[in-house]
Amino acid sequence: MINKLVEKIQKTGAPIVVGLDPMLDYIPEQLKKRAYTELGETLEGAAEAVWQFNKEIIDKTYDLIPAVKPQIAMYEQFGVPGIIAFKKTVDYCRKKELIVIGDIKRGDIGSTSTAYAVGHIGRVKVGNQEYTPFNEDFITVNPYLGSDGVNPFIDVCKEEKKGLFILVKTSNPSSGEFQDKLIDGRPLYELVGEKVSQWGEQCMGDDYSYIGAVVGATYPEMGKALRKIMPKTYILVPGYGAQGGSGKDLVHFFNEDGLGAIVNSSRGIIAAYKQEAYKKFGTENFGDASRAAVEDMVADIQGALSGK
Amino acid sequence: MINKLVEKIQKTGAPIVVGLDPMLDYIPEQLKKRAYTELGETLEGAAEAVWQFNKEIIDKTYDLIPAVKPQIAMYEQFGVPGIIAFKKTVDYCRKKELIVIGDIKRGDIGSTSTAYAVGHIGRVKVGNQEYTPFNEDFITVNPYLGSDGVNPFIDVCKEEKKGLFILVKTSNPSSGEFQDKLIDGRPLYELVGEKVSQWGEQCMGDDYSYIGAVVGATYPEMGKALRKIMPKTYILVPGYGAQGGSGKDLVHFFNEDGLGAIVNSSRGIIAAYKQEAYKKFGTENFGDASRAAVEDMVADIQGALSGK
Repeated sequence: MINKLVEKIQKTGAPIVVGLDPMLDYIPEQLKKRAYTELGETLEGAAEAVWQFNKEIIDKTYDLIPAVKPQIAMYEQFGVPGIIAFKKTVDYCRKKELIVIGDIKRGDIGSTSTAYAVGHIGRVKVGNQEYTPFNEDFITVNPYLGSDGVNPFIDVCKEEKKGLFILVKTSNPSSGEFQDKLIDGRPLYELVGEKVSQWGEQCMGDDYSYIGAVVGATYPEMGKALRKIMPKTYILVPGYGAQGGSGKDLVHFFNEDGLGAIVNSSRGIIAAYKQEAYKKFGTENFGDASRAAVEDMVADIQGALSGK
Repeated sequence: MINKLVEKIQKTGAPIVVGLDPMLDYIPEQLKKRAYTELGETLEGAAEAVWQFNKEIIDKTYDLIPAVKPQIAMYEQFGVPGIIAFKKTVDYCRKKELIVIGDIKRGDIGSTSTAYAVGHIGRVKVGNQEYTPFNEDFITVNPYLGSDGVNPFIDVCKEEKKGLFILVKTSNPSSGEFQDKLIDGRPLYELVGEKVSQWGEQCMGDDYSYIGAVVGATYPEMGKALRKIMPKTYILVPGYGAQGGSGKDLVHFFNEDGLGAIVNSSRGIIAAYKQEAYKKFGTENFGDASRAAVEDMVADIQGALSGK
């Protein structure tokens, strides 16, 4: 799967991922109205609005991008109907040949991590049958429980040729509260980064490992240090745009080959039509605004990379 | 909600929680056969078997116990039908007046944590309507992202009078890989414990905070230290029974008032019928085996506590 991701990044020239994190506030009124008219102001209505919103954005951007990253919390908040919309979104993206990174941040003790892994990136057995319930290509994983909480995910990756992005240094302001604590003079996130690199050695693709890392765009200096600690690790970089990161902050997340990182933007793309720069598209054409925002983001990052 | 939990623990005399983590291997053949005959060897069939299994165990134990802890991974592995079974289980337990601890171990950056919080313990708005999608009473939370990842959960707890159990020291063998790392001479889990105690001060019940902690039974010495660091924090203690912890390991998780901890057992209770000690009940009466296992567990812990 990491080879496929690299290949798609090279083909599109876009080391980016669109975060499908559809808060109801981002969804244009006309879409919500249509869904509520059909299904009422219900969880089903909300889920339908989310799905229609996603579909339009995917239709308008899928040829420009290698991957999407649906944030499951934004679906899970609507209960069972929300989870159905998540599944529909994953299936639709795969049909469009997009790589799907399920941003689920799961992590638990051994047997429980196995259950998450088979449900999201593997196969679950029921009697003599096997199913792929959610069928994402990559998922994000929380490392706080240590190796025996992470290994079940890695085992499933090996079997299924799927991948992980493990939280190393997150993009939020208080991520340092625990992640930056010094252990023998070195921050915890570096230790986690080393572990990710070691875990990754077990499942190498051609040039990069199936086991990636999450490092926030909001911490470029740490990204630089982590790039060196994890040379074969693909880095998923959240925090671009709305959270404050910009193209020039990102260059050190990449390797000399121009690869090794994939930058996420969520609100900046999916709610682009609300920004001054894309207002001209109008609410009706929110998908076109997202397309333009993708093009601008790619140009920003490519510009920064070529000036590296 | 913490007052209600304490009250129910005092009423039942049982500081325990039954972990509803139904792996298919735990479910008696006759139940699976019935579900598969009706729905096929499908995700729906698996979810139905899980639900029928849970229902019988709840029916046979609910009068003895204060709370249950469904582990969402075991449901999520069966995709959407699994999540429906999770929701059915939560609803049924609440109808039986059990306190439901959703073992979901979520945790993310601010707005995403908010989505998890409203979905699981709060209310989500759709137009002018409000819904309580999963409606657990407590949920478990992963602290790796720091305060701004945890605060949205706390905010919802304040509004809804619900509670959290935040991972401090987990029960698995490699939990020490990051959690035990020394920071200025003190292990990370102690720092997290201090934070949990501080977070908890914002939402106090009568004697204990709404914000609890998870500390594994498999680390009794650390439990003792953490008990002192977090005097007003309720501790959810996994790892009893199948994972290796026993009654005598648990005494120091409790305060002098005999309160302050609630011990989880999953496999030891729900798959009791498979153990030598409960074989006499037979597979048909697996619910009675679970009831006997609950009685034995309560006696073990009460015995250890009275000998403290």
